Amino acid sequence: MKQVYAVIMAGGAGTRFWPASRELLPKQLLALGPTANSLLRETSARIEAMVPSSRQTVVTAARLAEKTMAELPHAAVLSEPAPRNTAPCVGWATWTIAARDSEAVIMVLPSDHVVSDVPEFQKTLAVALASAAEGHIVTIGIKPTRAETGYGYIELESEVAAGVYRAARFVEKPNRARAEEYVASKRFLWNAGMFFFRAQDMERALRTHLPELAQGLDALRAAPEKLADLFPSLPSVSIDTGVMEKLSELRVVPGDFGWSDVGSWESAWDLGQKDENKNVLPEDAITVEASGNLVRQLGRMNGKLVALVGVQDLVVVDTEDALLIMPKSRAQDVRAVVEALKTRKNSKHL
Amino acid sequence: MKQVYAVIMAGGAGTRFWPASRELLPKQLLALGPTANSLLRETSARIEAMVPSSRQTVVTAARLAEKTMAELPHAAVLSEPAPRNTAPCVGWATWTIAARDSEAVIMVLPSDHVVSDVPEFQKTLAVALASAAEGHIVTIGIKPTRAETGYGYIELESEVAAGVYRAARFVEKPNRARAEEYVASKRFLWNAGMFFFRAQDMERALRTHLPELAQGLDALRAAPEKLADLFPSLPSVSIDTGVMEKLSELRVVPGDFGWSDVGSWESAWDLGQKDENKNVLPEDAITVEASGNLVRQLGRMNGKLVALVGVQDLVVVDTEDALLIMPKSRAQDVRAVVEALKTRKNSKHL
Repeated sequence: MKQVYAVIMAGGAGTRFWPASRELLPKQLLALGPTANSLLRETSARIEAMVPSSRQTVVTAARLAEKTMAELPHAAVLSEPAPRNTAPCVGWATWTIAARDSEAVIMVLPSDHVVSDVPEFQKTLAVALASAAEGHIVTIGIKPTRAETGYGYIELESEVAAGVYRAARFVEKPNRARAEEYVASKRFLWNAGMFFFRAQDMERALRTHLPELAQGLDALRAAPEKLADLFPSLPSVSIDTGVMEKLSELRVVPGDFGWSDVGSWESAWDLGQKDENKNVLPEDAITVEASGNLVRQLGRMNGKLVALVGVQDLVVVDTEDALLIMPKSRAQDVRAVVEALKTRKNSKHL
Repeated sequence: MKQVYAVIMAGGAGTRFWPASRELLPKQLLALGPTANSLLRETSARIEAMVPSSRQTVVTAARLAEKTMAELPHAAVLSEPAPRNTAPCVGWATWTIAARDSEAVIMVLPSDHVVSDVPEFQKTLAVALASAAEGHIVTIGIKPTRAETGYGYIELESEVAAGVYRAARFVEKPNRARAEEYVASKRFLWNAGMFFFRAQDMERALRTHLPELAQGLDALRAAPEKLADLFPSLPSVSIDTGVMEKLSELRVVPGDFGWSDVGSWESAWDLGQKDENKNVLPEDAITVEASGNLVRQLGRMNGKLVALVGVQDLVVVDTEDALLIMPKSRAQDVRAVVEALKTRKNSKHL
């Protein structure tokens, strides 16, 4: 089989994990999964057996380049001078890898997800890579476990090879009723933003569907020293809407490997190790009739004694310079706090 | 009028303000009132105009002597080698002041209460002191503002002088129904542990009602260098049950000056300055649909940004080494946390 390369997309900002996440410490650099490692490092480690880090490329934002390199010292880092959404990210990485290996088979993975069943994940990747190596553009669709309205869905058509389906269409985030239909039908999968292709196939797809982007990438490949000028002028468009939804043929490999996009503090609780009262707590915490709570300590707050008395289903995040307390059910509203900080021009805490 | 002396009882331990209060930092050394000063310092300042600090004596525990002296550098400090309840405390201070001024009129005050109407408080003290100077043992009874079951009550008999009553009896903490009767009757006042007497009258009362204690105090006065031996052998009894309840005649001055014994974090919230949603918060805190909460920061946690989203009526206490979260209504249950720490032999956090 041709050499496989990985592109890990790690440019995300993310405000949903404030006060743990900050502009200079976004979600993928936090240990939000079950281990003490950052989501980014876990993403890299999860594929290391299939794609050694010497063939891993991380695409990130310039302001995060240093921390990203510290996390993954053996990976190549592409540092975007400006955020241009995922199509330029995937395109730039593809152009770069193709220059090194024109036969490359590439997997694109988000950097900030969690997988609990790694062997199953790797099996699914292998199926997707095999299909990509044959010249298909492939995505993994996650078997839904609930009527989630926060994700896009992919509708399956027919099975075209063992475990590989033709995609009927992409569907934007549905409403509740529609999401319930999707889950019941068993023909809809979650779009998890993982893509597999030969470099040449993505190049062709971009030339067809986003010719302006492809020309920009050609210019960049010809004059890499002009990155700071050229990159910000690339069209800002997602790989989903710019390419995937327009392909006449897209393959989907259904996956079921304990996937989570760790979308909020509530899902961090969901993934955490729970005590007998469903609390996710630091060691030595004292609880008196407290249940369903998540307490996270960061930096020097690590190891501080936490005592919860008679509280239920709270999220408590204690960092060196900020303390957040809210019900788990309000986890999305942490954005309101970030907005308030912006209004106050409080850059220290952003 | 004879010289007035003040005895401030500051030996209390108190676990109800954990994690702010510790064995080495009890309630009276905390700024639990509306100002940034400790309750002890406020107690001293509140009477300074009537009794300069050179005539104030603070009785405290040996382990707290250093911090107490730092708080009140101009007061005399009596340092108890062992806790023996309030009768030996009042007795020792009385014997000590009497040796300096046999005509002394003494007021005894707890160190850990709050008074919001200081002029009215001082007026009440003046009435009590005048009665004490005439040879009566006097207490102040607080006009009840609710059917509190956590305090002892004093029943009034007849008014014997302007604003001065004869006490009918002391009553231990009543049940709810009884407390409601007491408040309705207007003849019952809260016992706030404030006492006024001439040194000679207290000396006589102790010789009559606690002769063993009086003899011990005589021995101590004769050989002050034997404090560590003598003090711990004094009978451990409260001034209320050992003396006040046994007096054939006790005077009571009703007081109504915004008194609080700051009995729990809930009362700290009660006393705090509230925002428009009844939150008592550090400066710059961010709230999103949060109301009725108390957040206290101590030490290096001072100034940390606090964000509350969608939480109601919580107590949050953030110190350098501990974080407590509980509903205000559970404020008494902080004792359970302290018990858990004792069980774990966690002396660091006690």
